[in-house]
Amino acid sequence: MNPFDVIDETCVTQFDDCADVIVVGLGIAGACAAIEAKRAGGDVIAVERASAGGGASALSSGLFYLGGGTAVQQACGYSDDAQNMYQFMIASMGSDNAQAVRQYCDQNVEHFNWLEQQGVPFERSCYKDKAVFLMGTEGLLSTGNEKVWPYRELARPVPRGHQVTGEGESTGNAAMQPLLQVCSELGVRGYYDTRVQALITDQSGTVVGVKTQQGGDTRFLKANKGVVLATGGFAMNPDMVQLHLQGLSATAEALGSAYSDGSGIQLGVAAGADTDAMQNYIATASIYPPGQLIKGIIVNESGQRFVAEDSYHGRTAEFIAKQSNQRAFLIVDSEIFAYPEIETARHQLIDGYETIEEMEQALAMPKDALVATLNQYNTAARDGVDPDFMKHPEWLKPLDQGPYAAFYISFSQSIYLYMTLGGLKTNANAQVLNSKGIAIPGLYAAGACSAHIPKSGASYASGMSLGPGSFFGRVAGRHIMSSNEDTP
Amino acid sequence: MNPFDVIDETCVTQFDDCADVIVVGLGIAGACAAIEAKRAGGDVIAVERASAGGGASALSSGLFYLGGGTAVQQACGYSDDAQNMYQFMIASMGSDNAQAVRQYCDQNVEHFNWLEQQGVPFERSCYKDKAVFLMGTEGLLSTGNEKVWPYRELARPVPRGHQVTGEGESTGNAAMQPLLQVCSELGVRGYYDTRVQALITDQSGTVVGVKTQQGGDTRFLKANKGVVLATGGFAMNPDMVQLHLQGLSATAEALGSAYSDGSGIQLGVAAGADTDAMQNYIATASIYPPGQLIKGIIVNESGQRFVAEDSYHGRTAEFIAKQSNQRAFLIVDSEIFAYPEIETARHQLIDGYETIEEMEQALAMPKDALVATLNQYNTAARDGVDPDFMKHPEWLKPLDQGPYAAFYISFSQSIYLYMTLGGLKTNANAQVLNSKGIAIPGLYAAGACSAHIPKSGASYASGMSLGPGSFFGRVAGRHIMSSNEDTP
Repeated sequence: MNPFDVIDETCVTQFDDCADVIVVGLGIAGACAAIEAKRAGGDVIAVERASAGGGASALSSGLFYLGGGTAVQQACGYSDDAQNMYQFMIASMGSDNAQAVRQYCDQNVEHFNWLEQQGVPFERSCYKDKAVFLMGTEGLLSTGNEKVWPYRELARPVPRGHQVTGEGESTGNAAMQPLLQVCSELGVRGYYDTRVQALITDQSGTVVGVKTQQGGDTRFLKANKGVVLATGGFAMNPDMVQLHLQGLSATAEALGSAYSDGSGIQLGVAAGADTDAMQNYIATASIYPPGQLIKGIIVNESGQRFVAEDSYHGRTAEFIAKQSNQRAFLIVDSEIFAYPEIETARHQLIDGYETIEEMEQALAMPKDALVATLNQYNTAARDGVDPDFMKHPEWLKPLDQGPYAAFYISFSQSIYLYMTLGGLKTNANAQVLNSKGIAIPGLYAAGACSAHIPKSGASYASGMSLGPGSFFGRVAGRHIMSSNEDTP
Repeated sequence: MNPFDVIDETCVTQFDDCADVIVVGLGIAGACAAIEAKRAGGDVIAVERASAGGGASALSSGLFYLGGGTAVQQACGYSDDAQNMYQFMIASMGSDNAQAVRQYCDQNVEHFNWLEQQGVPFERSCYKDKAVFLMGTEGLLSTGNEKVWPYRELARPVPRGHQVTGEGESTGNAAMQPLLQVCSELGVRGYYDTRVQALITDQSGTVVGVKTQQGGDTRFLKANKGVVLATGGFAMNPDMVQLHLQGLSATAEALGSAYSDGSGIQLGVAAGADTDAMQNYIATASIYPPGQLIKGIIVNESGQRFVAEDSYHGRTAEFIAKQSNQRAFLIVDSEIFAYPEIETARHQLIDGYETIEEMEQALAMPKDALVATLNQYNTAARDGVDPDFMKHPEWLKPLDQGPYAAFYISFSQSIYLYMTLGGLKTNANAQVLNSKGIAIPGLYAAGACSAHIPKSGASYASGMSLGPGSFFGRVAGRHIMSSNEDTP
């Protein structure tokens, strides 16, 4: 299955080039690793499969999940701190990665400042409505589940989606350009149009280099201190997707670059690495904007609610994926109906109905099921509460202004976009771990080829790829230079 | 793999007996189902593999997880209500089963009263210290994660472990005896020493009976309204354990009766049933009693903490199972050292050490890792806080009174007892669902042969087998009698 093998150093007759650190992949994690390794005094080679750096990061919307009291948060009047951010993160994603999350939160303000120092621009302004990505240039928006119960009770909800200043959908490029510029100015040596075919290990299992191919040329590159894998996710590898993402619907569309093909994960596995959360993904076909649709209810084909409708879209998708036939409907009344705006989220209007009874029948739900759900919801909503799913009061109103409408938001019918969340297992130093939990000497990973923080779509928020990706790229670049200083 | 097949009704030449409802298994769920079906006017047959009813329930410690303001809670001065109980339950176990959990919580006081009316005795008294099971006769103790962060912030923590009045470790029998007595008085017809070999279905897939074997005699029993499977878990089936419970250590010991062999799950699957959470289990080798040991810290082989030490023992075990090599240590100082009391929980004292540095070295941890963990923990503990895992202040004290001691609490070294949590997938009516999420007509399941509420050891609490098992047994018995009243 794994097309990659590992090469024993003794089989390499001659190395063609040599550096302290070899970074594989020049997206957000690779660029940050290269900068830090270079600033720590290392000679750094970056091997990039495309003709230039950027990768999927440059194609992304440019959101970083950052907090703890950044300058943007402060300028917009939000009070956050490291402990508050940590409590939200471990409450929503569990404490599996507590040490890495602690480190991420404690050093987040420093990390934001560092990004700005490299020239990544963030405007001091905030977008207040619900959005999946911004068309304007506001520097801050709420992207996660901070205001969703139970998280709003466990940490002060503040927005943490930091939007790089730029235009259009691929604002991520506005983050990548300055970072690549810094790499260039510092003298990171780039091998472009070059793919890594294998990691090279010595007799002790330490990773000591890579075998590359550029056009017809094969090269062996020595890495005195180690290799950082930063090759992105595997959404563009159909075999891996089929093997691992079994819950994904056939209509799902992958987000990523053409090179998000999981090669870094496979390279690591060939060298003895363990993986984590390979079956997990974040999928989205948001029910907002406009925010008013959140005042509707989401039900499954039995007419039952199953998720707080004010959840982050990835969380909602995760719950939809668990329903019978992965089917779900968004039900609204005429007061909050919005069409065709919802089509931006690729959902389809089914029809309008004079009564809920009619709708229930048309949607082939069990008799009285949807009627009962609506009655219960409306009764509580008139009191401003949602005892079953604790939707925030700001999104509560009785749905009693007929006619009513239903939208398909099924996993199998709407077009859900997704990214993979699984990858190489790493520790808080970005070292890659083997199946015994022991760090493989000389091997690091960061960004989407390592398992994400968080590992599940239910606790993902926009910006949790670029945020931890950039941070742990830096961690890798620093640790690799400090950890084996006695290596020749 | 599945040794059971389903029999087509057209192949049955003659039925040997007939009833409205056939209950398979006379443990807690089966007895409650039989009582309710009988009281609703049904003719009820109970098929039991042993020579008498009781099953694993009778061997259990007799704890029911009940709340919402029961008479015992009130008598002991605790204020609980259905919404408070619901919030704790869905906060800790997620909202996958929200409808069933809502129903359980809303009707819990009624259910407690019903149990007492059947003669199940609960003393109006409370045990205040930490215990895994009681040696005394107190009727109430805290058994779950109610006081563990984040749950203590999301619902008012109250004890919900309702202990049946009785003596010794198998107090469950004090619950089963009155229930079996009621079955007998009502005229539930028992087939004992009898195993079910197959479910019988008609051409539409409706379950209409069972094929049984008793000694050398094969019988076909017709069920006009349907069959309730209540056969318990699968911990005693080595093939199923090996197939499903891959995270379980080789030293784990199964809890259950000899007949907890998963046959009901396999019977259901043969008839088209879906299963849920088959890989999950609740394991335990508690670090308490005595409660003072909770003031220690739990670390993995890297010297890192990973769980709040005041968690319910099943939650702690779930986190230990996720650590490298499933290894963990309990570290204490001389002030809280307790030995040999901890041996009741099957943990082994490793040694005592004058300093943490010595201990760290002896346990082969990375240099300074444990020292750093202790320093950080102690500094915060002196301020009465635990910012990393939010252990409750009542269990916080700096561990600075040397000498120090370490205990093995590894999954592979201590002897963990476990029960299976997975089983047939059911809805809130206790109907068994097929892989499309549709109820199989005439087939119900309750108790440990259906997937537990909750589905994971991380959110289990003592009493969550007998509590939901008895409740959904009753639900099955009532629903089966009401759902198809036009059936001849």
